[in-house]
Amino acid sequence: MAVKKMGQQTIQFSLPPKIISSYSIVGPKEGEGPLKDWFDEVLTDDKYEEKTWEKAESKILRNSIIASLKSCQKTPEEIDFMLSGDLLNQLMSASYTARDLSIPFFGLYGACSTMAESLSLAAMTIDGGFADHVIAATSSHFSSAEKQFRFPLEHGNQKPPTAQWTVTGAGALVLASQGTGPIITHATVGKVVDFGITDANNMGAAMAPAAIDTISTHLNDTGRSPDFYDLILTGDLGEIGKQITNDLLKEKGYNIENVYNDCGVMIFDSAKQDTHCGGSGCGCSASVFCGHIYKRMMKKELKNVLLISTGALLSTISTQQGETIPGIAHAVAISM
Amino acid sequence: MAVKKMGQQTIQFSLPPKIISSYSIVGPKEGEGPLKDWFDEVLTDDKYEEKTWEKAESKILRNSIIASLKSCQKTPEEIDFMLSGDLLNQLMSASYTARDLSIPFFGLYGACSTMAESLSLAAMTIDGGFADHVIAATSSHFSSAEKQFRFPLEHGNQKPPTAQWTVTGAGALVLASQGTGPIITHATVGKVVDFGITDANNMGAAMAPAAIDTISTHLNDTGRSPDFYDLILTGDLGEIGKQITNDLLKEKGYNIENVYNDCGVMIFDSAKQDTHCGGSGCGCSASVFCGHIYKRMMKKELKNVLLISTGALLSTISTQQGETIPGIAHAVAISM
Repeated sequence: MAVKKMGQQTIQFSLPPKIISSYSIVGPKEGEGPLKDWFDEVLTDDKYEEKTWEKAESKILRNSIIASLKSCQKTPEEIDFMLSGDLLNQLMSASYTARDLSIPFFGLYGACSTMAESLSLAAMTIDGGFADHVIAATSSHFSSAEKQFRFPLEHGNQKPPTAQWTVTGAGALVLASQGTGPIITHATVGKVVDFGITDANNMGAAMAPAAIDTISTHLNDTGRSPDFYDLILTGDLGEIGKQITNDLLKEKGYNIENVYNDCGVMIFDSAKQDTHCGGSGCGCSASVFCGHIYKRMMKKELKNVLLISTGALLSTISTQQGETIPGIAHAVAISM
Repeated sequence: MAVKKMGQQTIQFSLPPKIISSYSIVGPKEGEGPLKDWFDEVLTDDKYEEKTWEKAESKILRNSIIASLKSCQKTPEEIDFMLSGDLLNQLMSASYTARDLSIPFFGLYGACSTMAESLSLAAMTIDGGFADHVIAATSSHFSSAEKQFRFPLEHGNQKPPTAQWTVTGAGALVLASQGTGPIITHATVGKVVDFGITDANNMGAAMAPAAIDTISTHLNDTGRSPDFYDLILTGDLGEIGKQITNDLLKEKGYNIENVYNDCGVMIFDSAKQDTHCGGSGCGCSASVFCGHIYKRMMKKELKNVLLISTGALLSTISTQQGETIPGIAHAVAISM
C-alpha cells in the first residue's frame, strides 16, 4: 500500500503543508449575514464595477488570490501551481484568473466541493516535494449560477423551501512547505454517490449521501472519533442536508452532533434573509473557511477542524438526459 | 526549491510511475482514418446503442476505463484515485463514470489538455507516495461538442477551412508504482496563454501559443534538446496550429521539425475525410496516445516521447462576455 495512505480513501501527509495565508471576498447579501465581520472584503455592488455577473465573479476570484498573495508577501512568480475551479461552464473565472496571473494552472471541477478538492491536491503537490508554494482557490456568484443552472433571474420564479442560495464570494489560500499557519494533516478523497435526487432545488439532499460517505470513511480510515475535532464542517448542505447528514451518521454509529456545523447554514440568517435552506456554491465553504474558520484557528479558538466541501454534480446537460444529480464530498483535516 | 522541481514549471519524478495498461475506443469516422488499425475498439454506431450522444460519450469513457482495468487485471476497488474530465459542461461523462465505478474521484477540466493534465497529477499521486494505482482518462464526442460549443448539428452550418473535427473517442491509462510499461519521467505544467483569438472555428491558432510556451519551457527546464525525443507530439493543434508551433519554435531557437507531429493531424486523412484542419477534443490526444503511441512504445519503436495535450479554454459563457479564447498546454515526458 502507498506509504502515505490510511485505510481506503485517506491520505496522511508526512510533512503537513502549512496554510500561510487566506483571503475572502463576499457579496452584499453575505455581508449582511451572521459572519459579516469575519470576511476580509464585502462588496457593496454584486457586479463589482463590471458589466456582467460572470466578469464580476472572475474579478472576485482574481482579487482574492492577489490579496492572499499580498498578505504573505509572495508574488505570482513565486507560486508553483494554482489549483482552482468554479461553477461557470469551462471554469471561466479560474481560467481567466490563471491567465492574468500567469501561474502554472491545474483546472479542477468538483462543483461546490472544489475548495476541499483543490486543498487536497495542493497539499499533495507540496508534501510530495513537487512544489513549495501553491494556491487553492474557488468562487461562485448567485446570479451567474442561477442563470446557468436554473432559470434566468428575469424569470422571477419562486424557489421552493428546499432551495439554497448560491453564495457570491471567493476564498483563496496559499499553502507552503515552510511557514506559519494551520497544517493540513489528512485528506479523504470522495467517491461520487448518487441517491437518485433529480430536483435542482434540493441540492442538500443530493449532496448529503456523499458527505455521509466521506465523513464516515474519514473517521474509519483515521481511527479518529468525532470528538477529536473541535468542528466538523460540511460545505453547503443547508438546513435539510445538515439534518440528513446528522441523522444518518448517527444511525451508522457516528454521533457528530456536538461538533457539527455547515457553512451553508452559518453564512445566512435564513429566516431573516429569505435564503430558504441556506447558502451553497463553491464560494460558500471557500469564504466561510477562508474568512471565518481560518481566523478562528489562527486565534487558537479552534484546534482541529475537518472541512468537508460537498458538491452536487448538477448539469443542465445531464438533466436533459433524464439523469439524476450525484454528489461528491472531499474532506481535509486541518490542525493548528 | 521543491526537491522534485526543475526550472520554472517542470517536475522530475524520483520514482517514475509506470503506465501498466492502456485502452482506446473511437467512433466510426476515426476508425476510417490512418490510425484505424491501432485503436482497441472502433464503434460502428456513434450513439453506441444509447439514446443520446452525451450518454454515448459517457459509455465510451466508462468502457475504456473498464477495459484498461481488465487488461492489467485490476478491479475498481484496487484503484486509489481516478483523475478524469471531459468537455461536457460539469464533466458529465467523467462524473457518471466515477459514480458507476465507485473510485475516489478528482474531476479535472483542462479542455483538450485533460489527458496530459490527468497524467501529470496522477503521476504526482504515485510518485508522492499517496497511491499505488491510479486511472487517468478522458473522452470527447463530435456531436455533443458541436452542440455545446458551436451550433446544433441540425443547423447544418458550413465549417471554415480553419475548423477542426472533434474526435469521438476516449483513452484510459492505468498508472502504477510497480509493474511493466513506459514510465513518466517529467511533467511540465502549463500556464494559460492568450493571444486574443476569438474564432471558435480556429482552435489551432488559439492553442498554439500555449503549446509553444510549454514546449520551450520544458526544453529549457530539463536542458534537453528536441532530438532527445523520438517524438514530440502535440494534442490537437491540427494543420494550422502545427505549422504555427513549428515555425514559432524555430524562431525561438528550438527546431523540433524532425521529431514533431500532432495527434489532430495524424488521426484523420483530412483531404479524404473532410475534417478540414484535423482532429481536436480531449479524446484526440487520448485515443492517439492510448491506441497508437503506447503500443509503439511497448513494441520499442519509440523510446522517448513528449506528449503535449493542448486545450482551448473556449466557453459559450465567456464568448457572451466578449472574451477571447485562451489556451493551455501540459507536457508529459514518457520513456520506455
